[in-house]
Amino acid sequence: MQADYHRLQNFVASVFESIGTPESQAQLAAEVLVSADARGIDSHGVARLAGYIRLFDHGRLNPNPQIAIVHETPSTAVIDGDKGLGLVVAPRAMEIACEKANLAGTGWVAVRNSNHFGIAGYHAMKALDHEMIGWAMTHAAPLVTPTFSRERLLGTNPIAIAIPAQTEPPFVADFASTAVAYGKLEILQRKGLDTPDGWVQDADGNPCNDAFAIKNGGALLPLGGDREHGSHKGYALGAMVDILSGVLSGANFGPWVPPFATAGFMSAGESVGIGTGHFLGAMRVDSFRPAEEFKYDMDKWIQRFRSAEAVDGKQVIIPGDPERILEAERKSMGIPLLEPVVADLKALSKRFNLPFSIA
Amino acid sequence: MQADYHRLQNFVASVFESIGTPESQAQLAAEVLVSADARGIDSHGVARLAGYIRLFDHGRLNPNPQIAIVHETPSTAVIDGDKGLGLVVAPRAMEIACEKANLAGTGWVAVRNSNHFGIAGYHAMKALDHEMIGWAMTHAAPLVTPTFSRERLLGTNPIAIAIPAQTEPPFVADFASTAVAYGKLEILQRKGLDTPDGWVQDADGNPCNDAFAIKNGGALLPLGGDREHGSHKGYALGAMVDILSGVLSGANFGPWVPPFATAGFMSAGESVGIGTGHFLGAMRVDSFRPAEEFKYDMDKWIQRFRSAEAVDGKQVIIPGDPERILEAERKSMGIPLLEPVVADLKALSKRFNLPFSIA
Repeated sequence: MQADYHRLQNFVASVFESIGTPESQAQLAAEVLVSADARGIDSHGVARLAGYIRLFDHGRLNPNPQIAIVHETPSTAVIDGDKGLGLVVAPRAMEIACEKANLAGTGWVAVRNSNHFGIAGYHAMKALDHEMIGWAMTHAAPLVTPTFSRERLLGTNPIAIAIPAQTEPPFVADFASTAVAYGKLEILQRKGLDTPDGWVQDADGNPCNDAFAIKNGGALLPLGGDREHGSHKGYALGAMVDILSGVLSGANFGPWVPPFATAGFMSAGESVGIGTGHFLGAMRVDSFRPAEEFKYDMDKWIQRFRSAEAVDGKQVIIPGDPERILEAERKSMGIPLLEPVVADLKALSKRFNLPFSIA
Repeated sequence: MQADYHRLQNFVASVFESIGTPESQAQLAAEVLVSADARGIDSHGVARLAGYIRLFDHGRLNPNPQIAIVHETPSTAVIDGDKGLGLVVAPRAMEIACEKANLAGTGWVAVRNSNHFGIAGYHAMKALDHEMIGWAMTHAAPLVTPTFSRERLLGTNPIAIAIPAQTEPPFVADFASTAVAYGKLEILQRKGLDTPDGWVQDADGNPCNDAFAIKNGGALLPLGGDREHGSHKGYALGAMVDILSGVLSGANFGPWVPPFATAGFMSAGESVGIGTGHFLGAMRVDSFRPAEEFKYDMDKWIQRFRSAEAVDGKQVIIPGDPERILEAERKSMGIPLLEPVVADLKALSKRFNLPFSIA
């Protein structure tokens, strides 16, 4: 089915309100979540709403958190999310990062005791409103093996960076530190297809093409795939995200990052820190160069790359272009939802006695 | 031949002094350059000494630069390297980053008007002495095609991050944003071998296995190799390094980054900014958490990953382990140098009338 962007967002907000989230926070959480669907990262959007509610059901989510600064300096802070929705905690962290950048040039906020924060790109892009470069990273439950490992020790650990330009749309990169996102395996699972080489390995650490590899004890591979193609670099990136999000904030890290609430993973397990962590940053452009000069050169950068001679039938893409185009389209034309997602949403509407009119 | 670490370093310093570099700067430049050889990144070590001297011969290198702060805020600075050796300019930038971090929690320095800075890892590791996390990035002359491009628009654009631990050695990642470093192509060239799939493409943008691809108008591929394996992520990483090093500093960027002085690339070409750029950063650990707590958890992180169940016959490696082990070995046992490199060094000793006793 095709959902209307605003109706869908209002419905999601009403679900968050039903578990006790204050209205303005519920609206914000819904905006972050639905922005994932609008930008084509459907795996991180409303498909996860039921999961957030399961987190609440199992006492792992505080619907009305008291988000607090634990420690700070002119350009840094650590905040405790009080088990709140990452969808709300991360925007607050980004506000703090931007406030610090206003005064000190840059602001860097490590977050502990949070939950899944949706798409990294949403948070990084918040800096753009202030003529700043935005950074957002988060770790996640372990699905990824370091190079040569049979054990899953890292999440898909995404990195986003958003950079403003003048007349051109901003540069917005937002990518997992793995060869491929988990959502791409799910698509192949539904179609009964194998994966290409270099995406997954089996439980013994051998390369394989099993779209169900994770369920069968295998793992997603770091960006690069194998050692010969630079998987140690993807591993290093994922490790960096884990250390900044987890070790620097005082959250869990590595294999101890609590799983999102999917069937069979209700418990947070053994703990070496406090909840899930993120890392957000903001750099005021004019703390380096006059903003007009910087943005003029960014336009030139973007135009040069976009107009590069391409291989036959292709075009060189600026990071963020496809998502921005899709977002505009889906905001006006609607958001396609898969049947199992619609069924989940309907179940939530029934449980909380909410009207279900999202089309 | 096998060179003695200290004699080699002294010889390199004497070459830099011969072109007018002050003694302390010449010693520093030599230390940075030889550390590349010691750490096994031979392509960035003394093999490039003759190239730096060619830069000087062609008026692109100022042996006695007046490095100046162009603009600053509590946590940021832009510095102009006055066409100096990146081997000297980047350490000064890192000092400024650490001074800023001391006061503001973090320090971030964008550099313009510099030259090649050696290995990124050396600079990032300088923060470790101050109980800080160090960052170093640099762009370089274009050898890499963005996904779907036939034109080379990016350098191998490395990223280094160094993170202190307690009893464990530090975590030191230092990697190009490409599938493979250019040095690996040179090894295959010498052996007359083809490359594996996913390293290079030909002049038309088709995947190929030609170790001479670059000479034949082709390119190195971004980390990921092709779109199906995430090359758009490697492209985004390389782009991020280019924008932070080039656009944010006011240096050149993208295809306009001046080439290093290899035969046939003497001119800096068309210019959209000032020289080559870098980006360096320092984050004081205790601007986030008490340093002892952080380092205790880093030990735990490192020990957990190092002891992970590995695939048969392998071990999970902590980024920085192989380079550190090799550095200790080569510092005591000597540094192996290839015959063409020795010949280059001998020619320099003759030109500058310097004694050549490096063994």
